[in-house]
Amino acid sequence: MKLNLDCIPCFQRQALQAVRFISDDEALHQKVLKEVAKKLLESNWDSTPPELAHEVHRIVKRLTNESDPYKEVKKESNDSVLKMYPVLQKQVEESSDPLRTAVRLAIAGNIIDFGPLQSFNLEDTAREVLKKQFAIDDYETLTEKIEDAETLLFFTDNAGEIGFDKLLVETLLKATNLEKIRFVVKGGPIINDATLEDAVYVGLCDLANVEFLKMSNGEAGTGPERNSQTVKNWIKEHDLVISKGQGNYEGLSEHNGLFFLLMAKCPVIASDLGVEVGDIILKYKQ
Amino acid sequence: MKLNLDCIPCFQRQALQAVRFISDDEALHQKVLKEVAKKLLESNWDSTPPELAHEVHRIVKRLTNESDPYKEVKKESNDSVLKMYPVLQKQVEESSDPLRTAVRLAIAGNIIDFGPLQSFNLEDTAREVLKKQFAIDDYETLTEKIEDAETLLFFTDNAGEIGFDKLLVETLLKATNLEKIRFVVKGGPIINDATLEDAVYVGLCDLANVEFLKMSNGEAGTGPERNSQTVKNWIKEHDLVISKGQGNYEGLSEHNGLFFLLMAKCPVIASDLGVEVGDIILKYKQ
Repeated sequence: MKLNLDCIPCFQRQALQAVRFISDDEALHQKVLKEVAKKLLESNWDSTPPELAHEVHRIVKRLTNESDPYKEVKKESNDSVLKMYPVLQKQVEESSDPLRTAVRLAIAGNIIDFGPLQSFNLEDTAREVLKKQFAIDDYETLTEKIEDAETLLFFTDNAGEIGFDKLLVETLLKATNLEKIRFVVKGGPIINDATLEDAVYVGLCDLANVEFLKMSNGEAGTGPERNSQTVKNWIKEHDLVISKGQGNYEGLSEHNGLFFLLMAKCPVIASDLGVEVGDIILKYKQ
Repeated sequence: MKLNLDCIPCFQRQALQAVRFISDDEALHQKVLKEVAKKLLESNWDSTPPELAHEVHRIVKRLTNESDPYKEVKKESNDSVLKMYPVLQKQVEESSDPLRTAVRLAIAGNIIDFGPLQSFNLEDTAREVLKKQFAIDDYETLTEKIEDAETLLFFTDNAGEIGFDKLLVETLLKATNLEKIRFVVKGGPIINDATLEDAVYVGLCDLANVEFLKMSNGEAGTGPERNSQTVKNWIKEHDLVISKGQGNYEGLSEHNGLFFLLMAKCPVIASDLGVEVGDIILKYKQ
């Protein structure tokens, strides 16, 4: 996906939010914002949104001398989802279509995103998404594809959200013959994206036959890029591939054979999908 | 009110929206965004938000060669409110407390604001605001102050919204002994702020004993600034003073004896008022 001009002010907003997470020093906030704005003005606007996002968050990390500005926020998100987990689990179990409910909740969890969003209410979102109509709904294809699937590749998105993903995978395990689950996490911190640490914290590793693959956070040595041949091979090697969130939708858009589960949270992604901001999506890309 | 760092990305978003209203040329969008970002980087961040907003919108006007980029949008807003007017009027008339309902609707109309907002749904907002709890509620003071009031000064905010203001003033006229109404409008176009043209279009001049005062849009010769001695005198000379919206709340904050009616639509204003984004406010400043 090409950069949209809307991303330019949005990145500045993100940088400001990130520096505020770790410091109350207004002079530092201003310094970060000015350097980010300057960098964006000098950058090549033919880059992809994640490429520029990496540049932006690199500035935040450098000027604040903090390798993971979202550390506290990620822990809070993980904790709130762990707290909600028993209730969510019960909602799925008691549902007339547990998989459908688990899919809905996994999309609701996608609201935990400090990239496009300033703030959100997780419990309200979960309630709304359980009733909401899908703007794109390839659920039937999902139920077909899972029938003979033995391996699942799951691209996670954000900390906290991965608790909802755990519930979805648990539900899939009950409904299918899946023998191997591979979760893709970030090989290092970037925004509030889930890392291996978060996956362990919310108990993804407690699932049966689970493995973790690391993908690049934009820094060297953290894993392959989303648009790499390695990631393409990962996708090909699995029977079922699920991708969560906007960042993966952007970054994995040139691959085929994936289910994209997400909430459209910014006008750029919404317009690419032909939906409205706030819409929920279960899209199969053949 | 001092500039908040959040205003910096927000102004860029506004400029982008404005140029898109009048042109589909992506190269022009990019040129405007770049020039606005550059200007903001060079500007004095101790300015007030309206001062910087004027700089930003001046760039849009210059590069697009269009003195009023929001012209079409303002007409659309005026038209939709005129269409809703009979229903709104009935809602007020049939209400157990017509003035309270008219105040609520006037605040709902404040959603028509292309400054902080990307998009909005007017009818949904009106429905919600009719039931919503006020975050600051000086209604009792309003009912006291109107008892002996003979003159009203009313600072309007946006095109379209002034249709709701008309309904509020009509309702006030029935409940009071008001003999003279003065509406303050912008002396020239800026964002989607109401000008005399809009006031005439929605029929504000059909009210009894009405006059119009023009206030600066940031350009020379369009009227006094909000923080001027002239505006201070206007306020002193009237028994009842009502100010609509965020811009007036920011700009008139150093004056006393006003009722501020608004919806908090951006985190900067919400935090200054000690409320949440989306909250509705009827605040008397003694």
